[in-house]
Amino acid sequence: MKTISYLDYNATCPIRPSVIEKVTEVMAEVGNPSSVHAAGRKARAIVEEARVQVAALTGCRPRDVMFCGGGTEANNTVLHGSGAKSLIISEIEHDCVLAAAKTAGIPVYRIPVTGAGVVELDALAELLEKAEKPALVSVMLANNEMGAIQPVAEVSVVAKEYGAFVHTDAVQAAGKLMLDRASLGVDYLTLSSHKIGGPQGVGAVVLAPTAPLKPLMVGGGQELGRRSGTENVAGYAGFGVAAFEAMAELGETEKLAVYRDKIEAAIREHSNETVLIGAEAERLPNTSCIAMRGVKGETQVMHFDLASICVSSGSACSSGKVKVSHVLSAMGYEDDVAESSIRVSLGYRTTEGDVDKFIEAWKSLHDRTLGRK
Amino acid sequence: MKTISYLDYNATCPIRPSVIEKVTEVMAEVGNPSSVHAAGRKARAIVEEARVQVAALTGCRPRDVMFCGGGTEANNTVLHGSGAKSLIISEIEHDCVLAAAKTAGIPVYRIPVTGAGVVELDALAELLEKAEKPALVSVMLANNEMGAIQPVAEVSVVAKEYGAFVHTDAVQAAGKLMLDRASLGVDYLTLSSHKIGGPQGVGAVVLAPTAPLKPLMVGGGQELGRRSGTENVAGYAGFGVAAFEAMAELGETEKLAVYRDKIEAAIREHSNETVLIGAEAERLPNTSCIAMRGVKGETQVMHFDLASICVSSGSACSSGKVKVSHVLSAMGYEDDVAESSIRVSLGYRTTEGDVDKFIEAWKSLHDRTLGRK
Repeated sequence: MKTISYLDYNATCPIRPSVIEKVTEVMAEVGNPSSVHAAGRKARAIVEEARVQVAALTGCRPRDVMFCGGGTEANNTVLHGSGAKSLIISEIEHDCVLAAAKTAGIPVYRIPVTGAGVVELDALAELLEKAEKPALVSVMLANNEMGAIQPVAEVSVVAKEYGAFVHTDAVQAAGKLMLDRASLGVDYLTLSSHKIGGPQGVGAVVLAPTAPLKPLMVGGGQELGRRSGTENVAGYAGFGVAAFEAMAELGETEKLAVYRDKIEAAIREHSNETVLIGAEAERLPNTSCIAMRGVKGETQVMHFDLASICVSSGSACSSGKVKVSHVLSAMGYEDDVAESSIRVSLGYRTTEGDVDKFIEAWKSLHDRTLGRK
Repeated sequence: MKTISYLDYNATCPIRPSVIEKVTEVMAEVGNPSSVHAAGRKARAIVEEARVQVAALTGCRPRDVMFCGGGTEANNTVLHGSGAKSLIISEIEHDCVLAAAKTAGIPVYRIPVTGAGVVELDALAELLEKAEKPALVSVMLANNEMGAIQPVAEVSVVAKEYGAFVHTDAVQAAGKLMLDRASLGVDYLTLSSHKIGGPQGVGAVVLAPTAPLKPLMVGGGQELGRRSGTENVAGYAGFGVAAFEAMAELGETEKLAVYRDKIEAAIREHSNETVLIGAEAERLPNTSCIAMRGVKGETQVMHFDLASICVSSGSACSSGKVKVSHVLSAMGYEDDVAESSIRVSLGYRTTEGDVDKFIEAWKSLHDRTLGRK
């Protein structure tokens, strides 16, 4: 079997060896953190140690970290639980934010984005003016499909003038950008463990000390009553280790930008027709969204798959369905560009060999389907 | 450090070695089951294998297993998502069912229980008569605090006469009783992985093929649109292995009843004042609820903890709070009995040595606080 070049980190990230070690070690313990006996206290200590590590990743107090079952749960909890009277979300949010907004039962307004994929602050101010108050503004910190970083601190300044709450989905930004809840000015920041090399099925809402939050799930009153259910002790411990490592490696993400730029330079040099989507914006260092016009994204994904390279068309969750990306549509791209786009996302294990292999396979597909330049 | 005798399986169960092995192995893979490339397909195959194993535990079709983040989430999803116009729940449901009923926004009726802790079917029929239709009836298969098995198949028969949906929280019954969704006649059956030796943070709703279910979380549309969020691939795999092993070991649960009976016989022989709660009902083989009158449950738990024995007072989730068990109150016990009760729950690793150690410690506490018989 050929070695796979996994270039789909924005879908899910290989779990870090140190995380696997920690999760395995903790699984061998037994204990419900709510139990008062020795086994319970030990489990409680493991959860609280992890909470400190995740708090450090976002510069918040440990008690402001609410652990939960993943990024989707975290986003659903915030969008349904802030107590706001209306929602103002960007056009390029993740599917779970779009869907949670639809089911929240309050009016929803959408902030348009520029051609580079960045929210328009003037439009936000207009929406805040007319929206039912208080509103909850939800703008992701970085987009999952093309990596554009959003001006969340500025969004917060504008939103606060109208007494709105602010949420940022930092699922894709975590581990790639420095995160500080307070300096972003947001009331809610959401995280997913498996996007930073932690276990799947784990996430968190990071709250401002004063932020209200109605729980999505009720019961035993865990997580200060904000999220009931027996704690996933081993999972949270793994998330903590991943947060610690991801923060320690933040300085190395520049390496990913070098790889990404190598890919994009090679493509630019090889093809005038190919569009590098979002490349004008400030972007995550690891993400490239590449539209080889005239070749369907799914066809490209299959070609790369046969070459033992994993990339995606659109976001992973919707990749089973054939639909045009709402993100690329919002940026003003016609369907022919959007349908021919793939996402390449790099991460901590990516090597220059993976990058070269991708470039070679990309050129080969290009020349085979569209002809040599 | 002394070896701990862990006798609190109903709070959480030691994760099975085979489960730890499987989870560790799967964590070393990478893949989002929604991705179409090789890594994604491999992850998908792992999830679907686990689904078959969990389906086998409950006698249902794999596609009727909806994985989620735990028993609390499973119960919240059903209580909020059936589309019923009213809820009829027993007085002895788990806190998460009681709390989810309160927040469902529809009328809630409570089915009383007998002194032995079994729901009264006549009362159920009366409630069904007057409740808004269709109702959702929710009766647990076995109680977590004292183990009484509920007549769920009969509940279903009565409920169906009134066109009601039926849910059973089988979290504590799984792995201790044979489970078959169809023969129980329920529309929804909920499970928790960590109560059968699987990982924490994983659960499932098992649905009848026709049962409606509005998702609690929306987004990428995973789990046939019933529960969005990237699948916890390793966690689900571990749950699958736990389900397989728990089913294979069902025949051995009789051993636990022998241990449980040894404990209860020793206590009866030693003290006339002690109440064995729920002992008149058909019970789970592993659970004993023991009220040493005159000695607070919390004091007992601490005594046993000092003797390296883990037991609980009330259910684990509420054990941090000092409140009288709603289950024992519903059974008609006065506060002095309820406050002096502890729960001993045995499991697959329990040895006769643990049992003898508990009996000795129990007698010692009894004699020290209440005097020799």
